[in-house]
Amino acid sequence: MVSVVLDLMGGDFAPHSTLKGVNLALRELPEVELYLVGPSSILEKAPQSERVKLVESGDEVVTMEDQPHEALKRKRRASLFVGLDLLAKGEAQAFVSAGNSGAVVAGSIFILGRLKGVRRPAIATMLPTLKLPMVLIDAGANVDSKPYDLYQFGLMASLFLEKIWQREKPRIALLSIGEEQGKGNQLVKKAHQLFLKSKLNYVGNIEGRDLYLGAVDVVVCDGFIGNICLKLSEGLAETIMTMLKEEVKKSFRSILGMYLAKPALASFKKKTDWREYGGAPLLGVRGNVIISHGKSDAVAIKNAIYQAYKFAKINLWERLESAISEFAVEEEGSEL
Amino acid sequence: MVSVVLDLMGGDFAPHSTLKGVNLALRELPEVELYLVGPSSILEKAPQSERVKLVESGDEVVTMEDQPHEALKRKRRASLFVGLDLLAKGEAQAFVSAGNSGAVVAGSIFILGRLKGVRRPAIATMLPTLKLPMVLIDAGANVDSKPYDLYQFGLMASLFLEKIWQREKPRIALLSIGEEQGKGNQLVKKAHQLFLKSKLNYVGNIEGRDLYLGAVDVVVCDGFIGNICLKLSEGLAETIMTMLKEEVKKSFRSILGMYLAKPALASFKKKTDWREYGGAPLLGVRGNVIISHGKSDAVAIKNAIYQAYKFAKINLWERLESAISEFAVEEEGSEL
Repeated sequence: MVSVVLDLMGGDFAPHSTLKGVNLALRELPEVELYLVGPSSILEKAPQSERVKLVESGDEVVTMEDQPHEALKRKRRASLFVGLDLLAKGEAQAFVSAGNSGAVVAGSIFILGRLKGVRRPAIATMLPTLKLPMVLIDAGANVDSKPYDLYQFGLMASLFLEKIWQREKPRIALLSIGEEQGKGNQLVKKAHQLFLKSKLNYVGNIEGRDLYLGAVDVVVCDGFIGNICLKLSEGLAETIMTMLKEEVKKSFRSILGMYLAKPALASFKKKTDWREYGGAPLLGVRGNVIISHGKSDAVAIKNAIYQAYKFAKINLWERLESAISEFAVEEEGSEL
Repeated sequence: MVSVVLDLMGGDFAPHSTLKGVNLALRELPEVELYLVGPSSILEKAPQSERVKLVESGDEVVTMEDQPHEALKRKRRASLFVGLDLLAKGEAQAFVSAGNSGAVVAGSIFILGRLKGVRRPAIATMLPTLKLPMVLIDAGANVDSKPYDLYQFGLMASLFLEKIWQREKPRIALLSIGEEQGKGNQLVKKAHQLFLKSKLNYVGNIEGRDLYLGAVDVVVCDGFIGNICLKLSEGLAETIMTMLKEEVKKSFRSILGMYLAKPALASFKKKTDWREYGGAPLLGVRGNVIISHGKSDAVAIKNAIYQAYKFAKINLWERLESAISEFAVEEEGSEL
């Protein structure tokens, strides 16, 4: 049995989405026991099961608008932080929240601590490509990263893909503006040198254009860029669909056409559905932490719990910690 | 009559695309006279017209693989640079190339010089949105920009939209990772302060997610990020179409559906076609320089010539130069 903490109040549709996700998880994940954290009024609605333990938090809730460090100061009894406490105390093995991701990052660093040798934990997001899904790291835990941070991001994401997704020797690339070696900004050029020195399967730069072709397994970038790329991709995909629909509406012929193509569109949609990936792990903290999408529904929550289960099963964070020292490279000369 | 220089050798499909573009331009743009620059073997194939002047370059050609500064040193007689010479000498009023954009940037800076007060010229690219097209600046002329560079990018793009696209009081935003004022990396936070001090119509941050909604007119970012966003968008749009087609192919029903929806798809494609925008201006140099897409066909080349014509007609670069001093703000305290 693996114990996973779920922040009942995390996400735009919580607690409705999280409570329904619990039901799904109990049905589909027999090896998981759940610690549900939330205010007493919400815990009352939780399903009863011998695999469910209820942990009462304060009534305060961390919202999407809260500044992470402010929230940590003023809402310390919120479910998000109380849930992390359970991990820190060793009472549970993994943690899932679809809440304010900045607050999950700040809370994890403060409550669980960083891995030895890691200055900056990072969010690793799975993205669909024309071939296999890939990892984009960092998806927004940090801005103004240093070259060595980028190197560690690549290392951690690589191990994550190997251990959780059984991907052998993941190909790691730096997101940059040209394919030629050493093209990019100062940050990328210096990170490039670090990767070259390492034992990792580093394949060089990847351009924005090729991101979704599936030619690499891990794409490394600073969180400012990663977050922009991620949100841009979501926004653009929606915009394309909106524009297409508007064009289609203009004639009966094309309305009929789109109706006929509907099964194909649905299958396409499923393939590109982030909910299938079950949340993004926060790599670099002393605990197995999964950040689920803010718009998570019950299925996404259940998949995030499954992801957390896989993390806990091999206790990924401890493996990451030993890899961080094993794969350390000489940093000198690579400072910005 | 306005005189525009065309680099016959610029672009993946040159000189076929450029020569055909010349024919289109002669037919559709009666107020334009063209200086065609290329090796003698290519000039022979150029259409004859009293509105066409032939200028012979060396046989060397700047390729997409050339390092800009290397090219400037070793291929100084290439059509790209000889064309810029015509602008510098005052023999022509605007310049168009679909060649290596890094070489156009480096050549323009070296041959034409920067505007007074401008440290970094930037590429301004028009992008479609759900509403009106917007400008993304910088699309890749620079990496590691400073806050004041970003401020000047916004100022120049704003004037460009006003004067060339008749957009009143363009709304300027900084591309960042949160909508809240002052969220972002160090660069964006400090540029934010500069915009606040200015007389420009600055509206704050825009997130990647909202880029294509059309809520703002000018999106400002460092060229490293701008180039990644641009290429990511192109690549993602293509990937979505490829994935959709693959799904559709799987059943006769959806093949028929897509066939019926074809006119709608074509209309959508036209709306999002970069060729309609006629190339991206390089703002911040002492000359009217238009960089056309590397994959330009004849229509794109003709549209780029039209854009160059509009630039020359109001001599945009001189207006930019006076705006740069008129809209200068106190830089102190905003250094990185």
